[in-house]
Amino acid sequence: MQRLLPLLAAPLLLAQAPPPSPAEPPVYNAADKIIADAPAAHWLAINPDDIMVMDTAAGRMLVQLAPDFAPAHVAAVKKLVREGQFDDGRIVRVQDNYVVQWTARPDPAKPKAPPLPPEYERPSAGLAFTPSPYVDTYAQAGFVAGWQAARDPATGTTWLAHCYGTVGVGRDNPPDTGDGAELYAVIGHGPRHLDRNIANIGRVLAGIEAHAALPRGAGAMGFYDEGRGLKIARVRLASQIPGFAKWQMMDTASPSFAAVVQARANRTGFFPRPAGAADLCTLRVPVREVK
Amino acid sequence: MQRLLPLLAAPLLLAQAPPPSPAEPPVYNAADKIIADAPAAHWLAINPDDIMVMDTAAGRMLVQLAPDFAPAHVAAVKKLVREGQFDDGRIVRVQDNYVVQWTARPDPAKPKAPPLPPEYERPSAGLAFTPSPYVDTYAQAGFVAGWQAARDPATGTTWLAHCYGTVGVGRDNPPDTGDGAELYAVIGHGPRHLDRNIANIGRVLAGIEAHAALPRGAGAMGFYDEGRGLKIARVRLASQIPGFAKWQMMDTASPSFAAVVQARANRTGFFPRPAGAADLCTLRVPVREVK
Repeated sequence: MQRLLPLLAAPLLLAQAPPPSPAEPPVYNAADKIIADAPAAHWLAINPDDIMVMDTAAGRMLVQLAPDFAPAHVAAVKKLVREGQFDDGRIVRVQDNYVVQWTARPDPAKPKAPPLPPEYERPSAGLAFTPSPYVDTYAQAGFVAGWQAARDPATGTTWLAHCYGTVGVGRDNPPDTGDGAELYAVIGHGPRHLDRNIANIGRVLAGIEAHAALPRGAGAMGFYDEGRGLKIARVRLASQIPGFAKWQMMDTASPSFAAVVQARANRTGFFPRPAGAADLCTLRVPVREVK
Repeated sequence: MQRLLPLLAAPLLLAQAPPPSPAEPPVYNAADKIIADAPAAHWLAINPDDIMVMDTAAGRMLVQLAPDFAPAHVAAVKKLVREGQFDDGRIVRVQDNYVVQWTARPDPAKPKAPPLPPEYERPSAGLAFTPSPYVDTYAQAGFVAGWQAARDPATGTTWLAHCYGTVGVGRDNPPDTGDGAELYAVIGHGPRHLDRNIANIGRVLAGIEAHAALPRGAGAMGFYDEGRGLKIARVRLASQIPGFAKWQMMDTASPSFAAVVQARANRTGFFPRPAGAADLCTLRVPVREVK
């Protein structure tokens, strides 16, 4: 698998039309060729201790965690994974154009974990931020070492942006009430209003398709009826699974990524009028399994 | 049904936490109250001749057509509907974070319809455009009589924006090859790079949830294997169905809609740090069935 998702530029062909000949140049997705040709130095290894491997009734989903952005939340989630608390957990909510949400197995015998600090943004100091060339509705958009991010010079803070596939920690109404036992993945238009309001702990690397296609919950906000959630069989870190595949993300400070950004903003072939820009959530960072 | 989709501001509650008491103020969605309280004069009737009623194996989906933006395409689609050409059609493609796509029943006996003109944008003259207060990555964002739209002062043109739920006409690679027999609905992050490149003919009013939850196609670009598409039983215009419900959209030039925009940009309750802005695709226009 070269990427988490097909590029958004896929053309809308008539079903009856013949497919483009393999001999034709890849006019739809110049980004595909840039990604395929990117030298090894333009890719960053993903630490297998930062990959959560979820086996659910819908299939396998890999989630990359971001300890540089929400260290206490990521540590809490990893602890729950190592304790097996997500085994026999449940997917409890699927809300259309918003989120799929899952929860660890309730354990009444276990003392409730202390609430986590509100790691919704972090100091910009110490981060190499590559700005997006394009204006953003919400903040200064850009990239940090393989992640879609945004920053605010007034507060001197940076955060991971909420886009399709972003994974965060659910919480109750007061800001410091998340404990890592309730997670969500975005399956709709990037809900950027959640930025700086909730702990974004990572993103789906692979396997979101089957989870985004789950039936929407009939309850308020897409919750499934109590007790009817979809089963999660097992969650492990990739580092706990001998021989698990290595994964990489493109270095967003590399010339290859800059070229991908340009290609996505200036699509050719199918597009008589290239947009000349691309919003942050459209500028997905390429990831790949290393064979 | 008050709206097509739940507002995006739904809080991420812990599943074990009690739901907010009904006595609490609706702190999450001030927009809900604005919509519920909007006077009749702030709503526009939707012409039942502009509502396509699709009954598919996944359920019923209503699509509002936009003849002011793509008149030849909308006329061609209505003609196909009236001829029954979409009955026994097929959903042929479901691509994650992109589109669900369907096609009329192939009719080899029928002469091929002439290609439609590239109605990808239209003159701004004659349109009352309400600008969004917030900056847009792609163009000048705003609203025209109940639609999310964008415009370009340099070309003097306006177009409907591609957002979640947008419906357009598939075409082959040359720009004027769509004939209205192949339609798609967006089920992912708003693919605004399609703006001005394809005929956007409307949006889903209701029933997108079950269609967005269809299994993703295993073929290239999410196409289902040949012959395996999901059946469309029947497509009619609401005007052809006696007693069909009336629908309305909020007038985007009304004070109520301006208040909805403000509420969505400045969410309270769950949100310790309101975004202070909202991108065009997040600023969905309220629609409702009139009881």
